Parts: sequence; structure tokens; C-alpha cells
Amino acid sequence: MNKTSLQLHFESLRSNRIFELFVVMVIIFSALMVGAKTYNMPKEALIAVKWLDVLITVIFLFEITVRFIGEEVKRNFFKSGWNIFDSLVVIVSLVPIEGSEMALVGRLIRIFRVLRMISIIPELRLLINSLMKALPQLGYVVLLMFIIFYIYAAIGSTIFAAINPILWGDISISMLTLFRVMTFEDWTDVMYETMEVHPLSWLYFLSFIFLTTFAFLNMVIGIIVSVMEEEHTREREERDAREGKITIEDLHQQIRELKALIQKS
Amino acid sequence: MNKTSLQLHFESLRSNRIFELFVVMVIIFSALMVGAKTYNMPKEALIAVKWLDVLITVIFLFEITVRFIGEEVKRNFFKSGWNIFDSLVVIVSLVPIEGSEMALVGRLIRIFRVLRMISIIPELRLLINSLMKALPQLGYVVLLMFIIFYIYAAIGSTIFAAINPILWGDISISMLTLFRVMTFEDWTDVMYETMEVHPLSWLYFLSFIFLTTFAFLNMVIGIIVSVMEEEHTREREERDAREGKITIEDLHQQIRELKALIQKS
Amino acid sequence: MNKTSLQLHFESLRSNRIFELFVVMVIIFSALMVGAKTYNMPKEALIAVKWLDVLITVIFLFEITVRFIGEEVKRNFFKSGWNIFDSLVVIVSLVPIEGSEMALVGRLIRIFRVLRMISIIPELRLLINSLMKALPQLGYVVLLMFIIFYIYAAIGSTIFAAINPILWGDISISMLTLFRVMTFEDWTDVMYETMEVHPLSWLYFLSFIFLTTFAFLNMVIGIIVSVMEEEHTREREERDAREGKITIEDLHQQIRELKALIQKS
Amino acid sequence: MNKTSLQLHFESLRSNRIFELFVVMVIIFSALMVGAKTYNMPKEALIAVKWLDVLITVIFLFEITVRFIGEEVKRNFFKSGWNIFDSLVVIVSLVPIEGSEMALVGRLIRIFRVLRMISIIPELRLLINSLMKALPQLGYVVLLMFIIFYIYAAIGSTIFAAINPILWGDISISMLTLFRVMTFEDWTDVMYETMEVHPLSWLYFLSFIFLTTFAFLNMVIGIIVSVMEEEHTREREERDAREGKITIEDLHQQIRELKALIQKS
Repeated sequence: MNKTSLQLHFESLRSNRIFELFVVMVIIFSALMVGAKTYNMPKEALIAVKWLDVLITVIFLFEITVRFIGEEVKRNFFKSGWNIFDSLVVIVSLVPIEGSEMALVGRLIRIFRVLRMISIIPELRLLINSLMKALPQLGYVVLLMFIIFYIYAAIGSTIFAAINPILWGDISISMLTLFRVMTFEDWTDVMYETMEVHPLSWLYFLSFIFLTTFAFLNMVIGIIVSVMEEEHTREREERDAREGKITIEDLHQQIRELKALIQKS
Repeated sequence: MNKTSLQLHFESLRSNRIFELFVVMVIIFSALMVGAKTYNMPKEALIAVKWLDVLITVIFLFEITVRFIGEEVKRNFFKSGWNIFDSLVVIVSLVPIEGSEMALVGRLIRIFRVLRMISIIPELRLLINSLMKALPQLGYVVLLMFIIFYIYAAIGSTIFAAINPILWGDISISMLTLFRVMTFEDWTDVMYETMEVHPLSWLYFLSFIFLTTFAFLNMVIGIIVSVMEEEHTREREERDAREGKITIEDLHQQIRELKALIQKS
Repeated sequence: MNKTSLQLHFESLRSNRIFELFVVMVIIFSALMVGAKTYNMPKEALIAVKWLDVLITVIFLFEITVRFIGEEVKRNFFKSGWNIFDSLVVIVSLVPIEGSEMALVGRLIRIFRVLRMISIIPELRLLINSLMKALPQLGYVVLLMFIIFYIYAAIGSTIFAAINPILWGDISISMLTLFRVMTFEDWTDVMYETMEVHPLSWLYFLSFIFLTTFAFLNMVIGIIVSVMEEEHTREREERDAREGKITIEDLHQQIRELKALIQKS
Repeated sequence: MNKTSLQLHFESLRSNRIFELFVVMVIIFSALMVGAKTYNMPKEALIAVKWLDVLITVIFLFEITVRFIGEEVKRNFFKSGWNIFDSLVVIVSLVPIEGSEMALVGRLIRIFRVLRMISIIPELRLLINSLMKALPQLGYVVLLMFIIFYIYAAIGSTIFAAINPILWGDISISMLTLFRVMTFEDWTDVMYETMEVHPLSWLYFLSFIFLTTFAFLNMVIGIIVSVMEEEHTREREERDAREGKITIEDLHQQIRELKALIQKS
């Protein structure tokens, strides 16, 4: 009985506007601290930062506990990916960190706290969810792109490895070089170098640029069309709902019945 | 009584075609003078420019006064952001400027006079207004982009600061470097430098490029879809108005009434 | 009488398939010769090229004469911009050219003959015409872009001229530098240089990039939307034509008349 | 009789799920081996790779034979471009390769085996087919682009050849340089060099960039519009099919008949 009252208490706290605002403030503050730590700071400030870090960790731990206890059915808490993400970030911050190597990891984990900005603002969560939904339809174009990259990288490291092993040494380095070519970043330097040995190698680079640009364009156009079609379907359904789903077909049926009536009379 | 006649006089002057044309001419002339001042000019020309500057200021002051007095309800004058903008530009030009430091500021203010081109041409004002309307819907994507930049900049300045403090010294410099990476401007130079110390840092750069490109694409597609949807709604409303807002639903109702009539008879 | 028969003869020649094909062949051949001339050629080839040039000029002159005489109403010939363009190219090729300076101009004029490829292929003419139609709606966005460039160039040459006169010397050089920044071509080199003197000048570059990217995006989206709307209107008109332009409004009128009939009976 | 039973046996094997999966595995394995070969490997690994290569060739040969014999009508086998492609890749791998020059060719052919990834995954085959369908409508814009490139390259190699023969030596090198300018890759370096001799040459570069960007944009927009229109037509046909193809026209006809009936009675 005592436990249930505690849960109710936490449930009301969880949906309390002031508590929510307070958590957002703490997240923004922790984000600012992450930024502040990248500047050179006097010794006293460093100590202050350390204690503020502990304070933020405690507040985050408290908040996640409130949310967990406030949840009526405990299993539902772990059904939301955002809850799991928040819990992970908080729990990892608890691990004590010593030594220079580990300190870096600790600082990196603290940076990921900024991601809580996304989990706390519903509009950003919606945006991320809708971006995620767009990913699967990209699947096969991305696979095709990868195959193009893989084949060109294999050809590149076979023919050009002797010319410049830093750029074409093996297939993974070649893929990085090809990504560079795709972004047009000093790609002519790469090409001119190979053209000195293989004068026709511009064919390799131009065909690669055309293929990837074409595939990329198709990906973009694919997304535009599918998003607009979705929008269109949604709109038509809305209109159908508004107009009571009566189609021209129905009207036709009605008029035929009318005709039958008159012919009978 | 005298004042009202003055106001009427100014009101008619304000909407006079020749007066309007004259003001546009003066604005274009002042824009050309702004350009001319960036060239080396003989001493006499400089004096001429100085007096022309005074003349333009006087004409602008006269024009803004005409527009202000010509306005029947004085409060409406300040309701238009463009009026406030014009007044500010003219008033600031009046401040006397001496000394070399201030001279620069004076010249910069004179440059902003060119913006009056936008406030004087109605089509450009419309264009700016419609661009402004597109901004709020970008809000959350821009916030998301900023969070991505912030997290990557924090990671970057934590790991890479020791490698190249000019590019990764603190979080604000790192954000500028990341913007550079996003525009693909010599981004491989930045990456190759960090890869010498951390061979896996290409993961950092490639994931950043994918994330920002994906978010940017989504922003663009979002604008396209929303603009087209708007266009679509506007068009449907026009069609509804043209067709007298009679829906299939109405027809159905009519036929049912008809049936009832026949059955009765 | 003699003249009319000549005209008829030329009219039939003009629309003769073999004559048309022959002209296309000559145009392609003259285009190939333009390309060939850029390579080092032995002396004999140069003489051959010179005579072939004369031959092509004669053929073009003959073709344009055929087309002119073949036209029934002479004024109509000059109503087509493509005819005027063709005539100009042919006439200018007739001017005898001596001296090294003039020789360059002569070669350049011969290059423009390649443009006859566009005027001879109807599909390309259509494409160009439709591209031309898209231009006017860009008008005000281009004007806005120009104002943005002008203001930023004026600011740039005022503040940065002392730092690097080659990039920021006067307003026209500054506009070229800004165009370079807009294409992201080594723009950070330009920025880092100014940031050494004015550490806040990144604001100038970033705001410029955001403004122009935003205006450019709006231009692109504007074209997409207007093209699609046009397509949409055309399609709806087609459907209206197919369905006999009977609207729901008409049906409603019919049913009302029907009702009146029954109520009378 | 014996042969037919063999064919039936192979036909069932061809559509066997486990056999299909096995072939996909072998293709992925051969792709990984292509990648592995770009790394430095110990001598024993090289021998293993050689024998694995032979094994893969045998498996591929077996698979293509199964598919060929499994086909009832032999001519249909060669009607599919994918079958021909697969056969070619397998047959070419059979040619024995000796000597260093040939070894390179052999390795390149083995790389093309990775393309079998596309022919084996039906979704990728669909994607490629739909990309191919988009190509013809690009035809005339690509031709226009080529003419623009050709004319600018001819002008460029006429005027700038003396300044930098490496970039502007003849028309084909000039076209490569112009493609580089189109990708904005260090294009200002190319321009600044020519501007030292011909100060107005920025007109050449800027007009080229505007023309190609404009043509490219139109190509992209053209694809978007045509894809969406196609989608739209497909959707309308679906709706027509769903609604039994009864148009407002039909309704109108029905009501007129109804009217005639009543007037008669």
C-alpha cells in the first residue's frame, strides 16, 4: 500500500510542469558545461566543474528513478527506446573513472548527455522518428552504392596501388579515397596523379562520378516522391472521411434504383 | 486645418508616380556611389562624393518625412517593419562621424542604404515576406542540426585539440571546422591529419557528413512538400469556390429526396 | 513566273529529307573540324582545313539562301530568332580575316557554328525554348541575390581591402570572391586570412553562405513547384476535355430540374 | 527421355531455396576475396586464394550450367540481359592467364564477379531496370550539355592554350578542365591564371557555371516532375479501377434518360 502511494506520488511528479522544466534546464546546463570544459579554465573552475558534474549525475539519476517508479507497468518503461537510452547514459556516468586514458572516455560519455536534449523535447523525438522511418526505403539504393564503391575500390587498388599506396593501398583506403572523389574534394589531384601513368584513367573517375551522382539523385528523388505520395494518400483519406466516403459508383447505383422505381410505377 | 491640408498634400505626393520613380532613382544612385567609393578616386571626386552623400541623406530624410506626415493614422506608420527599417537607416546616417574608426562605421551604414532597394520594390518585399514565412517550419531541424554540430564539436575538441589546436582548440573553433567539413572544403586535409594519430577517426568525419547531409536533405524535402501542399490546398479551395462547393454528398442527398418523392406519388 | 517556280523548287528542297540530313552532316562535320583545329596538325592538314572551311561556309550560305527563297512570305523568315541566328553566323563567317589578332576572332566565330546543332534539331530547340520560359519567374530572386552580393561585396571591400587587395580590392573583385565563397571553393582560406585581423569575420562569411544558400534553395523549390503546378493544370484541363466538361454543379442542376418535373406531374 | 529428366532435375534445383542461398554465399565470399587480395598476404594465403579462385569459378560454371539446362526453351535463356552478363563473366574467368600484364586483366575480370550481387538480388535488378528507364528522357539534356561543353572547350583551347597547355592544350583536355570547373574543384585557380592574361575571362567561367548549373537543375527537376506524373497517372488508374470507371459523364447520361422516362410517363 505504501509503495503504491509512492508510485502515485512519483507519477504526478513525473508529469509536473515545473519538474519537467527543471530537468530541461539541467540538461541545457550540462550541455553548456560540456562546451565550457573544452576551454582552458583556472584550477578553481575545474574543481567547481567536477562537483557540478556529480550534482548533474545525481539529478539525472533521481529523474530516471522517478520516471521508472512512476511507470505503472514496469515492462512498458523498457519498451521505449528513449527510456533505455536515457538509462544507459545515466548509468554509464556512474562508473568511477581514474587514469588519463579512462578520463577521455568519461568526458566523451558526458558529451552524450547532450543527446538527452533530443529525448526530452517531444518535437525533436518526432523528427528523429520520422527520419528513421525514411531509412528502410533507402536500403537497396545504399546497398547499390556500396557495391559501386566496392567494385571501383577493388579496381582502384589493383591498378593504382603502385602509383600512390597512401590513397590506393588496399580496398578500405581506396573506398575512403573514392568517397573523397564523390565529394569533389581535390579529386583532380588524385586523377592527375594517376593520369600520368595511365592516361585513360579519367574514364575511371568520370564514370564513378556519373554513377554515384546518378544513384544519389535517384535516392533523393525517391524520397521526395514517396513523402509526397504519403502526404497525398493522407489527404485523400481525409477528404473521403469529410465527404462520407460516397463515391460516384454509389450515385450511379442510386440513380439505377430510381429508374427501376419509375419504370415500375 | 492647415495641417490637414499639408497631410493631404503629402499623401498625394507619396503616391505620386514621378515622386516614387525619383526615390527609386536616388536609391539606385546611392547604391552605385557605395560601389564607386570602393575604387581609388582622385581628390576632387572624393569631395563630390561627400556632397552627394549629404544630398542623398537630405532626400531620404525628406522622403521619409513625406511618408510619415502623409500617413493619416501615425501609429500605422510604425506597424510596418519596412517603415521602421527605412527610418532607422536614414536617422543613423544623420549622426556626424569623425575619426578613422568611426568613418568605417559610417561607410558601413551607408551600405545598408542599398537594402532600401528591397523595401521600395513591392515584389522583393513580397519575396522576403514569403521567405520569412518558410523559416519557422525549419526551426526544429535547425535545432537538431545545432545539437549534432555541438556534440561533434565537443567530441572533436576533446580528442583532436592536442593534434591541431588551430582547428580543434575549443568548442566554437571546432564548430567552425565542422561547418567547413560540411561544405566539403579541404575536409580530407583535416581528416588525414587526425588519422595519423587516431586511425579510426574517419568514422567521426564520415558519420558527421552522413548525419548532416541526411538532416539537410530532409529539411529541403520538408520545405518542398509543405510548399506544394499549401499550393494544393489553395488550388482545391479555388476549385471548390468555382464549382459552388457542391459535393458528391449533396448530390446523394438530392437523389434520396427524389426517391422519396417518387415513392410517395 | 520564273521566280515563283524557283521558290517552289527551293521550298521542296528545303523540306527534302536528304537535303536536311546533308545539312546536319555538314554541321556535325564543321563541329568536328572546330575540335580538330585545337590539336597540332601538319602543314598539309592545315591547308586542307582551310579549304574545307571555305567549303562549309559555301554550303551554309547555300542552305540559308535556300531557306530564305523557299519562304513564301519573306517577313516570316525574320520572325524566327533561330533564322536570324543562323544568318548572322553565316554572314559573319564571310568577312575576310587577316592578321593574328583577327584570326582569333575568326576561329571563335567558326566555333559558334556548333550552335547550329541546336537550331537544326527540333527537340533541342524545344528544350531551349522551355528553359527560356523558366527564366522570367527567376527574375526577382536573381535581383535579390544580386542585392545580397552587392551589399556583402561593399562591406567586404570596405573592411578587408587592406588585408588582401587581390581578393577585396574593389566591389567587382569582391563580388567575384564572394561567388567563389558561394561555390565553397577554398572559402576557408579567404576566411582564415580575414579572421587573423578581424576575429569575428566568420560571422560575415557564415551569414553570407546561409543567405545565398537559402535564396538559392528557394529559387530551386520555386521552379519545381511552378513546373509541377503547370503540369497539374494541363492534366486537369485534359481530364475536363475528356469528361466533356460536365461538373458536379451541372449534375446538381439536372437533378433539380428532375425534381421539379416530378413535383409537377 | 533421359535428357528431359535431367532438365526437370536441374529445373527443380534451380528454384531450390538452399541452392539459391548457397550461390549468394559464394558470390559474397568471392566479393570478400576480391577485397582481401588488395591487402599484402603471406605466401601460403596467396596459394589458398588461388585454389579458392578455381573453386569459385567451378561453382559459378556449375550454377550457370544448371540454369541453362534447367531452362525449358533454350532461346529464352539468352533473352535476359542478366543471363548473358552472368555467362560472360563466368566464361571469361575460364581463360587461362599467364604473365604480369595479363594477370592484371585477370584480376579485373574477377572484380566484375561482384556485379553478380546485382543480378542475384531481385530488388537490385528492379532498381537498375528503373534507373535505366530514366535514362532516355535525359537524352536531349545530356546532348545539350555536351554541346555547351564542346563549344566552351573549343573557345577555351583557342584562347587559353598558350597560357597553360596542361589544362587547355586541346579540346579533350579542355573538356576535362571544364568538368573540373563544373564540380567547383579549385576552379578559381584555373580562372585566376587566365585572368592575368585576359582580365575579362571571368565572364567565360561564370557564364559556363551558370549555363551548366541551369541545365543540370532543369534535368533534375525534369526527372522529379516526370516520376511524380507517372506516379500520379498510376494512382488515378487505380482509383478508376476501384470506382468501376464510372465518370460524371456517365451519371449525366443516366439522369437524362431518367428525365426522358418521366416526361414520357
